[in-house]
Amino acid sequence: MQQVRSAERLGGAHTSVPRIPEQMEALVKYAEPGATLQTVPVPPIGPTDTLIRVMAASICGTDLHIYRWDQWAQHRVHPPMVFGHEFCGEVVAAGSEATRIGVGAYVSAETHIACGACYECLHGLQHICKRVEIIGVDRPGAFAQYVAVPERNLWPTDRRFPPEIATIQEPMGNAVHSALAAPIAGATVAIFGAGPIGLFTVPIARATGAARIFTVEPAPFRRQLATRMGSDVVIDPGSENVVSRLLEETEGEGVDVVLEMSGNPGAIGQAFSALRHGGHVSMLGIPSRPVEVDLADGVIFKGATIHGISGRRIWDTWYQTRGFLESGMDLSPIITHVLPLHQFETAFDLVASGQSGKVVLLPNAS
Amino acid sequence: MQQVRSAERLGGAHTSVPRIPEQMEALVKYAEPGATLQTVPVPPIGPTDTLIRVMAASICGTDLHIYRWDQWAQHRVHPPMVFGHEFCGEVVAAGSEATRIGVGAYVSAETHIACGACYECLHGLQHICKRVEIIGVDRPGAFAQYVAVPERNLWPTDRRFPPEIATIQEPMGNAVHSALAAPIAGATVAIFGAGPIGLFTVPIARATGAARIFTVEPAPFRRQLATRMGSDVVIDPGSENVVSRLLEETEGEGVDVVLEMSGNPGAIGQAFSALRHGGHVSMLGIPSRPVEVDLADGVIFKGATIHGISGRRIWDTWYQTRGFLESGMDLSPIITHVLPLHQFETAFDLVASGQSGKVVLLPNAS
Amino acid sequence: MQQVRSAERLGGAHTSVPRIPEQMEALVKYAEPGATLQTVPVPPIGPTDTLIRVMAASICGTDLHIYRWDQWAQHRVHPPMVFGHEFCGEVVAAGSEATRIGVGAYVSAETHIACGACYECLHGLQHICKRVEIIGVDRPGAFAQYVAVPERNLWPTDRRFPPEIATIQEPMGNAVHSALAAPIAGATVAIFGAGPIGLFTVPIARATGAARIFTVEPAPFRRQLATRMGSDVVIDPGSENVVSRLLEETEGEGVDVVLEMSGNPGAIGQAFSALRHGGHVSMLGIPSRPVEVDLADGVIFKGATIHGISGRRIWDTWYQTRGFLESGMDLSPIITHVLPLHQFETAFDLVASGQSGKVVLLPNAS
Amino acid sequence: MQQVRSAERLGGAHTSVPRIPEQMEALVKYAEPGATLQTVPVPPIGPTDTLIRVMAASICGTDLHIYRWDQWAQHRVHPPMVFGHEFCGEVVAAGSEATRIGVGAYVSAETHIACGACYECLHGLQHICKRVEIIGVDRPGAFAQYVAVPERNLWPTDRRFPPEIATIQEPMGNAVHSALAAPIAGATVAIFGAGPIGLFTVPIARATGAARIFTVEPAPFRRQLATRMGSDVVIDPGSENVVSRLLEETEGEGVDVVLEMSGNPGAIGQAFSALRHGGHVSMLGIPSRPVEVDLADGVIFKGATIHGISGRRIWDTWYQTRGFLESGMDLSPIITHVLPLHQFETAFDLVASGQSGKVVLLPNAS
Repeated sequence: MQQVRSAERLGGAHTSVPRIPEQMEALVKYAEPGATLQTVPVPPIGPTDTLIRVMAASICGTDLHIYRWDQWAQHRVHPPMVFGHEFCGEVVAAGSEATRIGVGAYVSAETHIACGACYECLHGLQHICKRVEIIGVDRPGAFAQYVAVPERNLWPTDRRFPPEIATIQEPMGNAVHSALAAPIAGATVAIFGAGPIGLFTVPIARATGAARIFTVEPAPFRRQLATRMGSDVVIDPGSENVVSRLLEETEGEGVDVVLEMSGNPGAIGQAFSALRHGGHVSMLGIPSRPVEVDLADGVIFKGATIHGISGRRIWDTWYQTRGFLESGMDLSPIITHVLPLHQFETAFDLVASGQSGKVVLLPNAS
Repeated sequence: MQQVRSAERLGGAHTSVPRIPEQMEALVKYAEPGATLQTVPVPPIGPTDTLIRVMAASICGTDLHIYRWDQWAQHRVHPPMVFGHEFCGEVVAAGSEATRIGVGAYVSAETHIACGACYECLHGLQHICKRVEIIGVDRPGAFAQYVAVPERNLWPTDRRFPPEIATIQEPMGNAVHSALAAPIAGATVAIFGAGPIGLFTVPIARATGAARIFTVEPAPFRRQLATRMGSDVVIDPGSENVVSRLLEETEGEGVDVVLEMSGNPGAIGQAFSALRHGGHVSMLGIPSRPVEVDLADGVIFKGATIHGISGRRIWDTWYQTRGFLESGMDLSPIITHVLPLHQFETAFDLVASGQSGKVVLLPNAS
Repeated sequence: MQQVRSAERLGGAHTSVPRIPEQMEALVKYAEPGATLQTVPVPPIGPTDTLIRVMAASICGTDLHIYRWDQWAQHRVHPPMVFGHEFCGEVVAAGSEATRIGVGAYVSAETHIACGACYECLHGLQHICKRVEIIGVDRPGAFAQYVAVPERNLWPTDRRFPPEIATIQEPMGNAVHSALAAPIAGATVAIFGAGPIGLFTVPIARATGAARIFTVEPAPFRRQLATRMGSDVVIDPGSENVVSRLLEETEGEGVDVVLEMSGNPGAIGQAFSALRHGGHVSMLGIPSRPVEVDLADGVIFKGATIHGISGRRIWDTWYQTRGFLESGMDLSPIITHVLPLHQFETAFDLVASGQSGKVVLLPNAS
Repeated sequence: MQQVRSAERLGGAHTSVPRIPEQMEALVKYAEPGATLQTVPVPPIGPTDTLIRVMAASICGTDLHIYRWDQWAQHRVHPPMVFGHEFCGEVVAAGSEATRIGVGAYVSAETHIACGACYECLHGLQHICKRVEIIGVDRPGAFAQYVAVPERNLWPTDRRFPPEIATIQEPMGNAVHSALAAPIAGATVAIFGAGPIGLFTVPIARATGAARIFTVEPAPFRRQLATRMGSDVVIDPGSENVVSRLLEETEGEGVDVVLEMSGNPGAIGQAFSALRHGGHVSMLGIPSRPVEVDLADGVIFKGATIHGISGRRIWDTWYQTRGFLESGMDLSPIITHVLPLHQFETAFDLVASGQSGKVVLLPNAS
């Protein structure tokens, strides 16, 4: 185990550092649906790594794909693998060259480990590094009591933000990245899909000056959350014509900005139809297959601009995310469930049900 | 007088159109300090003009220069001249070719009448038209019961916004233009100068996602207003070191964005000193003389970006301004005084005193 | 007929203004394939219009659609209609309010007549006006000895540029608009489709700093022209794997910028596959039907930006186009054929054959 | 000495690696005007460093300040110090963790060693790192046979570019950074100052689509070079009114873009006066003292945008620079003198005289 150094930057604010055990509880993925909670070794760390005692780990849509062991997951993940990538915790050990942040620090982490040497990394585009390694997908993750993370991926976080907020900085960053890619100040904004990231975009769009916010979402529970978070209008695509409604709400102009958070092919078609001439679309939701797009009428004649959004700009998006949290943005209504790790089956059922916002697991809860 | 057409676009919402008199009360500027309230002819209108019955006209810093008859005013204004340019009112007559908006409409107006033919106008930069004519400066203005305005300069306004709000859309547009020129989302913002336009920038910066807002202003009354509008920190340049305080508040980094609304040479120096590397400065305040700037350390080595801000983008800024108002932004605390036109002396004294926010005159109040 | 005023701005440079006849030769479209050259009245002009004696009118892909009378044309054009929209000529008459440019001026014209009042027009986006009227599509066009055009759509042109160059400023503007929407300086650029607009983008991409230019085009004649205009590599999609070749030419990175000028669904798929992470795509070519796009891998994970390109920014693009011409850019090799109007059948056959670049008609050639 | 690894990425292209001596010739700065050529130890390298055998090192204006030992230099440099920072050469040794580029590689280098941990570095703004360490200013430089450089600062360069070109990539990057900060395509561009960096901007502005290029420079030799490099107009500020001439050349509009490369207060004043409304100014030249700027008329009313330019964006600017070189841009006329290191006195006299473009030293010439 690495030498433990004092956390000089944190002063007296941190809690006493617990002794690091050799074994831990972790949620392990095997080549079958579901997951197994079992005892595994605490991961070793290299000279530039840190070991984090996980205080909270939240469930992402990607984790559900892995849990269900769908086609994408089978193709991408090499089991057995501890999964989970949204988390926060405390640094409990640091490698000999990981001297910047210090043991005891309260941190979240950028989950994309960029190579640092490819064309994209050399252009300040580490978020789309072509050789990216993702925590909890390509290497052991955070549905565990401890996770090993390169120090350069850590994001020190103020302790005034509790673990269930600190852990969602990563997906909130997706929402920030999506919203800030388009000119929202004074604009009408349609959000397609009110899963957790879509829900995060509601207050972010409001906080960046949206004139009016429309949210399109089939699940009633999530429409209610969207309203609670500040959406001016919520639209159920199952019961009304989305394009007609959006045109009507905008005096026939169409919406200035679309945040496409659903990945649903039907929603994508509606998004382009309801877009104003000269409008912007941020696309974050991942369609599971190629989508037929009316490029002539939806993009070209409209003079539209489309922004593909992947991950978070490193570290621009994290600073912006921190700025929003510091300015008092309250995302707690979106965190609908907090459960100990051993209740993971309940947690994944909740995520799959649409009867939840963000679901958070506590790996070190007693 | 021009033919009066029915206001088809407004339906029954407008009030009945009053009969237009031949004479009106107006505040006339002569080549001496002060101004004279007197009876003058209602201005004639040409085929592309409209006549507006002024419901409210607010006082701008420029009006104070004219009122005081300072050097700039003597150079620019050709008396006798009815002055005043921020206003709202109702269209009571329209020229034969002014067929778009209609009599009865409730409107404010862009006060810069662009030539439409110069290089800037042909590039969508009408706000910096080199042959601009300004209402209330170059042609009769709005401190009067009626004002003549080209129809293309009108901005139809929803009647849910009362006259004292409708009239401030023009200076609020200055604030919107200044704030949106810089990347504010998630950023720290320092506002120098809390006159009315500076005060408007406080909620606008908040609404566009500022992480923290600092306002620098010597007048205690205005510092209090800045706090009330949401400034996180207010700084009195007379009693503390502005640069030190801003660096301290930003952990030594400097502020991400400066909105320079004061035109004060000392403030401009502080702004560049307190700016973060890579930061942005929007400059709207007009210094009365050339200012010594440390370009090497304040701009070049910092890789700073400076945006000169003049007027409002036509009509982008007006749409954004409307978007902020429609989203519920409440600027009413900044409107500290509403007076009938004949109390203009009191009004100008208030503007000069620093014991006011925006002061509004009512030319048609009984 | 309108009063003819002297062309004060042009001094002695213009030729003597010919007497305007009552009848003229024009190419008229009826509801059947082909077109009919016949004698029709010279069009009347309104107070804000000008009458142009057409010196050259070039054939656009849109004109071929109309000529062939395909489904799109049958849906859009209301015959009988004089068509043709790319042109240049001399102002021979001006309406009473068309006083800016003057009789005798040598002009080309923006062919999109924007409404000036819609949301887009009020945002400086006249090129995507939702109520646009297009010369030669919605109103009589320029395959005729005379065409009536609103004065505000005229673009005065220096007489050092001969008619066959002056007429192509409009489609060259499409190319300028496409190229300048993306960051080309120092970048690798792939142009899909080497019709005339695609060919124009070759020297424009070079002139804006492209590091290397790749052109993908099936027609051998057009590949040769692309090489002659400065394309570093030309690729025949019929004989080699376009994506593999582009990756190979860019050391596996993909191209920084794609200019999609073909509208071909296969090309669009290749474009997204060959794009670098973080790359930009300008889309100008109009697909005739919805296209299946791999949004996940082609746009979202790549963090790509897509720009829909329609028309020309008014007048930004025209000024830039003029700047390129004035800096000495030579587009004459792309103008492969210049024919008198009565040889229109030969001209349209040439356009359809792929054995041509830009084909220009001369309506007033003897 | 570090372990020497084979240069796997370079294949057979590199020359055989010479044996590394213990002593070398270097130009050492002492606390007095001038410099001393003497024998010093070859610098040691740490685990992340490389040792470069210097093939060419060019003289920057900063080096002249150091050579003259002016006030700035006395304040900044801590003698004795080997100076010189623009260079190229061959990697002859690499630390144990410097495994990416390899011994034998032909390289230039980014001379700003960013800390990698400050706010700016974490935002992709390493070029304005607040804790930057500069080669040849803060640590031993390249006017020597060998220089030690962190591997992450190396820029592998194609051997088709000879040493006198490879060494100027760094100052050419300054020019690229300055030019690309402003929208040059189709624009009129005024370059103030035709020292080497100003001269580099001439072909770069041309290659990025400048419509017309004006260069303002007092030294006749440099005006001739500016013309040779493609400047359309050269202006001698000593013999004509610069502002009047620029307005005349632009039909009274002013220039669209200014590249201020001189740092001269008079030139800066002219630059703002001759700028078009809505124009852009890139400021790279460093004034030696605060400059009085007419912010009201020169910046604010004009709606101007000013870009402070420092260093080169890492690595965006380097890639763009490489793109320009690969596209065939020929900068060799600007390299007016190439001398062996021991003729450094002649070299510095040439730089001081204004009778030179870029002056290159060869530390390993026999």
